[in-house]
Amino acid sequence: MPSEPRPLRSASVPWWSNAEWQQMKSDEGCPMCADGSLVTNEHSDLIAELPFSFARLHRNQAQAGYCVVILKGHATELHELDHTRLAGFWYDVAAVGRAVTEIFQPVKIDSLVMGHRCPHLHCHVYPQYASDDPLKVVDISAGSLRLRSEQRQDRISQLHQSIQGQ
Amino acid sequence: MPSEPRPLRSASVPWWSNAEWQQMKSDEGCPMCADGSLVTNEHSDLIAELPFSFARLHRNQAQAGYCVVILKGHATELHELDHTRLAGFWYDVAAVGRAVTEIFQPVKIDSLVMGHRCPHLHCHVYPQYASDDPLKVVDISAGSLRLRSEQRQDRISQLHQSIQGQ
Repeated sequence: MPSEPRPLRSASVPWWSNAEWQQMKSDEGCPMCADGSLVTNEHSDLIAELPFSFARLHRNQAQAGYCVVILKGHATELHELDHTRLAGFWYDVAAVGRAVTEIFQPVKIDSLVMGHRCPHLHCHVYPQYASDDPLKVVDISAGSLRLRSEQRQDRISQLHQSIQGQ
Repeated sequence: MPSEPRPLRSASVPWWSNAEWQQMKSDEGCPMCADGSLVTNEHSDLIAELPFSFARLHRNQAQAGYCVVILKGHATELHELDHTRLAGFWYDVAAVGRAVTEIFQPVKIDSLVMGHRCPHLHCHVYPQYASDDPLKVVDISAGSLRLRSEQRQDRISQLHQSIQGQ
């Protein structure tokens, strides 16, 4: 089952209908609950299972090292989490950001929690490089750079090792 | 001194020059160190001083309840923070998100850490409403809705009370 970025339903006018949104927010049929832990899915590949999340390499590597950190268990908003889980999730996100920085040397790491298409709490770890325009609106769907399988595996291994070595 | 969103310098091609960026990342002359704690500045107004941050109401209320949570002390990346400060910062952000949800009833809270114009760690608490298009790229500079002073004070008071009551 797909997680992001392809919407499962067509957008209502303008947000999802209340019925759709309530269903999307529930854990029943949540695509990230279903595929967030898989070694591979349509959108990303597993780098590491962390204490509170699954760290995944996004399939679109237009921004080298673009990762997604998906909360273990279902929740939709940060303020639904208890202190332990909230802290643990962000400790995991920071570890991924540190690994991306170590390996790819971006100028900045953006950490973006949205989830308009799949409201299962996740954070886009989205690096910015010297070749990027700092004043441009950040669009996580921009560009399309798909790595060959070996390149992807190499990148996953590097990130895995960096995270585990922290 | 201004913090966001007006850049202090013109963008180089394409990111800030290395010299500019290193200077911007340092705490010397950092505009958010200077004005993040003020009752009012050019871009926002203080809602509450929290344990690890300053919660502020953004001047542009095109998204009702748009807040910025600014880390106390200077740092540029999440992975620079120790566990206590990282956890505390996100506990503060979650408290602001909870207050915005309680008062304005958005359909979703986005929590966005970027800082391309001012790399002092801060999080945009950016609510989405039923009137918003969930598939549109999020642009925190979109729209322009400036409240009259009394309306702004009312909103600040409501948020302050909600946060303090948690």
